[in-house]
Amino acid sequence: MSVIYDRVALIGLGLIAGSMGLAMRRDGLAREIVGTARSAETRDVAVELGLCDRVTETAAEAVEGADLVVLAVPVGAMGRVAQEIAPHLKRGAVVTDVGSVKRAVLEGVGPHLPEGVHFVPTHPMAGTEHSGPHAGFAELFQNRWCLIVPPEGADETEIARLERFWQALGAHTERMDVEHHDLVCAVVSHIPHLIAYTMVGVADDLRRVSDQEVIKFSAAGFRDFTRIAASDPTMWRDVFLTNKEATLEILGRFTEELFALQRAIRTGDGDQLFDYFTHTRAIRRGIIEAGQDTEAPDFGRGTKQK
Amino acid sequence: MSVIYDRVALIGLGLIAGSMGLAMRRDGLAREIVGTARSAETRDVAVELGLCDRVTETAAEAVEGADLVVLAVPVGAMGRVAQEIAPHLKRGAVVTDVGSVKRAVLEGVGPHLPEGVHFVPTHPMAGTEHSGPHAGFAELFQNRWCLIVPPEGADETEIARLERFWQALGAHTERMDVEHHDLVCAVVSHIPHLIAYTMVGVADDLRRVSDQEVIKFSAAGFRDFTRIAASDPTMWRDVFLTNKEATLEILGRFTEELFALQRAIRTGDGDQLFDYFTHTRAIRRGIIEAGQDTEAPDFGRGTKQK
Repeated sequence: MSVIYDRVALIGLGLIAGSMGLAMRRDGLAREIVGTARSAETRDVAVELGLCDRVTETAAEAVEGADLVVLAVPVGAMGRVAQEIAPHLKRGAVVTDVGSVKRAVLEGVGPHLPEGVHFVPTHPMAGTEHSGPHAGFAELFQNRWCLIVPPEGADETEIARLERFWQALGAHTERMDVEHHDLVCAVVSHIPHLIAYTMVGVADDLRRVSDQEVIKFSAAGFRDFTRIAASDPTMWRDVFLTNKEATLEILGRFTEELFALQRAIRTGDGDQLFDYFTHTRAIRRGIIEAGQDTEAPDFGRGTKQK
Repeated sequence: MSVIYDRVALIGLGLIAGSMGLAMRRDGLAREIVGTARSAETRDVAVELGLCDRVTETAAEAVEGADLVVLAVPVGAMGRVAQEIAPHLKRGAVVTDVGSVKRAVLEGVGPHLPEGVHFVPTHPMAGTEHSGPHAGFAELFQNRWCLIVPPEGADETEIARLERFWQALGAHTERMDVEHHDLVCAVVSHIPHLIAYTMVGVADDLRRVSDQEVIKFSAAGFRDFTRIAASDPTMWRDVFLTNKEATLEILGRFTEELFALQRAIRTGDGDQLFDYFTHTRAIRRGIIEAGQDTEAPDFGRGTKQK
């Protein structure tokens, strides 16, 4: 691999930025990586683990002379950071972010950035339930999707360079417009996470089933709900607050469907349940046929070896 | 291993019974395994794959002289099968089942069985999204839980022998009373499955997000919902119809919680979301500390190597 950006600034040093730093260093994608985080402890850990070449105390210092600036803070903090770094950005620099919601980031960050700076939001669809600087690993983006959400009129050369950068980190890229991005992510990611959080909350709240039992028998389907529900609370709070419209819409559809099934259970309508459960098999088949399921996760019910 | 039951009859030859047959033959736990299924095709496949030593056309023939009879049909069909086999059961035989619901099985099967036959329901908490005779594999029960739900007054010697049998198949056993079993399973298994079915149904029903997109980006959290939602429709229909009370109760709690979170999103109450998401981390930690998560499934978001 060869250098894609001379100097890269990572604002925030958690799972995503840490993984980017490690992957960039492994493959020599940047000549220098500067990192910053609000907590001194996080900065120390980042240096110790080699997530970046050097750290600065402020975001303003970090972006000095940077060719690529990566905003890797919770979506709700992006606007504040943009305001802080704006006067210090190099002319011609590319600013990107890694947030899970894009309309809010466009509106929160865009207005602060000066002319001559390119803003190209992205969304690497990768993560684990771990967070913080210790959580990063260079292979995080391997074979994952990174959605590229350029605003109207963005510079084609810089969009293409950023795509090349994400591909060098291991990701597949796809362009999407902002509204569609927020809706697709509500369906495939945000609502599944909210549901998992809720289910875990319910189990914990039941006094007649002990925590010990829930834990012991979790492999029956419940266990991966808990994994999802252990994801970073700040990040997910911001996702739901900033993707409110799409989230509430899909949630409305979800409860509508759930009530229909609940009613079928209450009235004993076995045909409706059977038809519904048969129908949902089709999507699963589609995923297998599309080759999107080559890995082991299976809600803990054991992987079949044939 | 040594023989635990001389002759075992498997009624129904799907994923669970097929796996039991293969494991019994591997370890020599029975001198003869007789199987039956309603479909001639299933019986042929069972012989071909060696799930049992011989097959019979009817359940009545299969149980002749059997020391252990395993009812491995959907919960809704157990009563009918019990009625059919009752006159043909050997005195002193043990009848068990592998259904996911126990109150309905006790009530549906128990009254048909003659005196001198021991009825001890069990529930192996193991499975995959595959079903049918091709789906079985001998390792299915390895390190899984099998709940033993003996009715009042059941013979202690026979309960202990059946526990030894399940342990020989690889499972850990635990005794539970029937009402508690149905509640625990509603929490850790039945409701998570219903939710997964619902979420997949919602995604499929949305016209603005293409199936292709849902499939492509499913690793963001959605994918393992589809795996769960591909489970056997007949089995799950019967689970919900026969565990109605516990299912509706937990479902009520679930929607209550979900509405509280939905309201927090609508009103922008970030603190409530943050507190909720922080709280759910505790259960996850408990599962890791209890050593219940040693495998790879992680909602497809990549396994961290450290």
